Amino acid sequence: MKIGLDVGGTKTDAVAVAPGGAIAGRVRLATGWGPDAVIQTVIDAVASLRRELALPDGAIASVGIGTPGQVVSGTGRVVHAVNLGVDELDLAAAVAPALGVPVHVENDVKAAAIGAYALLGATGSMAYLNLGTGVAAGIVLDGALRRGPRGTAGEVGHISVDPHGPLCRCGQRGCIEALAGGGAIAERWSRPGALPVRDVFDAADAGDALARDLRHGLARGVAAAVRILVLTADVDTVVLGGGITALGARLMADVSAELGASAAASPFMRSLGLEERVALLPAGSPAAALGAALIGDSREPEEALARG
Amino acid sequence: MKIGLDVGGTKTDAVAVAPGGAIAGRVRLATGWGPDAVIQTVIDAVASLRRELALPDGAIASVGIGTPGQVVSGTGRVVHAVNLGVDELDLAAAVAPALGVPVHVENDVKAAAIGAYALLGATGSMAYLNLGTGVAAGIVLDGALRRGPRGTAGEVGHISVDPHGPLCRCGQRGCIEALAGGGAIAERWSRPGALPVRDVFDAADAGDALARDLRHGLARGVAAAVRILVLTADVDTVVLGGGITALGARLMADVSAELGASAAASPFMRSLGLEERVALLPAGSPAAALGAALIGDSREPEEALARG
Repeated sequence: MKIGLDVGGTKTDAVAVAPGGAIAGRVRLATGWGPDAVIQTVIDAVASLRRELALPDGAIASVGIGTPGQVVSGTGRVVHAVNLGVDELDLAAAVAPALGVPVHVENDVKAAAIGAYALLGATGSMAYLNLGTGVAAGIVLDGALRRGPRGTAGEVGHISVDPHGPLCRCGQRGCIEALAGGGAIAERWSRPGALPVRDVFDAADAGDALARDLRHGLARGVAAAVRILVLTADVDTVVLGGGITALGARLMADVSAELGASAAASPFMRSLGLEERVALLPAGSPAAALGAALIGDSREPEEALARG
Repeated sequence: MKIGLDVGGTKTDAVAVAPGGAIAGRVRLATGWGPDAVIQTVIDAVASLRRELALPDGAIASVGIGTPGQVVSGTGRVVHAVNLGVDELDLAAAVAPALGVPVHVENDVKAAAIGAYALLGATGSMAYLNLGTGVAAGIVLDGALRRGPRGTAGEVGHISVDPHGPLCRCGQRGCIEALAGGGAIAERWSRPGALPVRDVFDAADAGDALARDLRHGLARGVAAAVRILVLTADVDTVVLGGGITALGARLMADVSAELGASAAASPFMRSLGLEERVALLPAGSPAAALGAALIGDSREPEEALARG
């Protein structure tokens, strides 16, 4: 049994994956804040799954952990995971002694790309575009995750697509993340509310000018990311996931309209059939946790692995 | 000996590559116009190399052909090679009987990417960004050309990076090609001259406002392509080639200034060190012809191959 964890800013999603790839069990628990609490959350999540499934000793083959922030290539070290209160942590080394099995660590968006590919039964190449507080993609080429030597493969959030667009927190103007990131949208909306992007959609429907502008920007940013992923990596499909995709069909309608407009203007864009190549990850899918569990399959064992 | 041809709009560049990878001979000849003349050009170029090097019968193992236009994936068929006067042609099948060896056909930019990778002794991943009449890239990931199922990998020319930018011949606004393509620049410059982009650089130096705008657009477009290639595929380096790179250091200075400006504005962009990751292909390098010769090495023999 392989265990996969998606350690998010508020909750941790954990799955146990049977040798055939089926999800045998799933638990969710609150994520602690800061390095020590994150380490404890990982250990608790594995223990919880072990209890839930009554797993005997030796039944767990490996633990994969998806985490926000950057994972230093070829290591189990996490840096700048601001959502977790972690500046730098060798997560694999920290949890391996307690777990007693090989531990892999991967960026959560990259893990979700692997998981979405498996969940959707994809073949060929696929990009997973995560629309959360920030925007980033994971790219699976011919079944294998593209990491790149610096781990920046799929970092489409900080590509500028409008020199006169809104200022991005990264310092550039018109980045895809400045248009389509939940954090950037909430900041520009700047009204109280638990679900600011949903509020923006509702207010846009009611005719609010700022909301219409922000909502259009979101669709423009997502459509730009889709075009970039297809025209650079030639992925067959782009799967959308992350918090903002809770908007479901309302989001997809906007993105389709945006892709449709460029297809109407350009025979070349029309020939790409982009509207048919974008799909939503079903809500609640454990893509990142599943992907984290599967990481060991797509990586050499000597990489990014600590043995307990 | 492997033969590689770069069939261009005006001339055809042909090289013979020894088993170790060294270029044993090179000839250039004028390219004929239209399907029949292109077929004859290929046959003449191979015959010319054979004479030049006094190659005995059986000395040629394969012929690879780089061509403008689109090569239908997994075939030797060329479509929309407008520069050659070819709308559709099974080039591999047409020349194989006369040549009597396996023939591979590849898009010229993709062939140049393979050739540049070999010529520069690159390791890891590299993008070759071709700045000619149009703009397109070839992407080599961990030593292997990324083609993609639809052949659109690296087609960064038609990614829009400015919704208010110039209209592109593809129908969109602000495409990288509309900013940085030699054809688009010459059209907007619209003054007579054999080397319009060089004229634009000279006029910009002399203070002409339109020329300064066009020259700045070229640098913006190239810098945008570099950022997109690095932030999508995480290539180690981006190598610039194609007709416009005859401007050499003048072009590089502009591109570096543009990359430097985004690095100054954004710590994230600065962390990528893009200025150090862009290089010029040396002028006159037979990258596309060499790459065409090497194609057989990076492709399964049953693909895109016709036996004479």
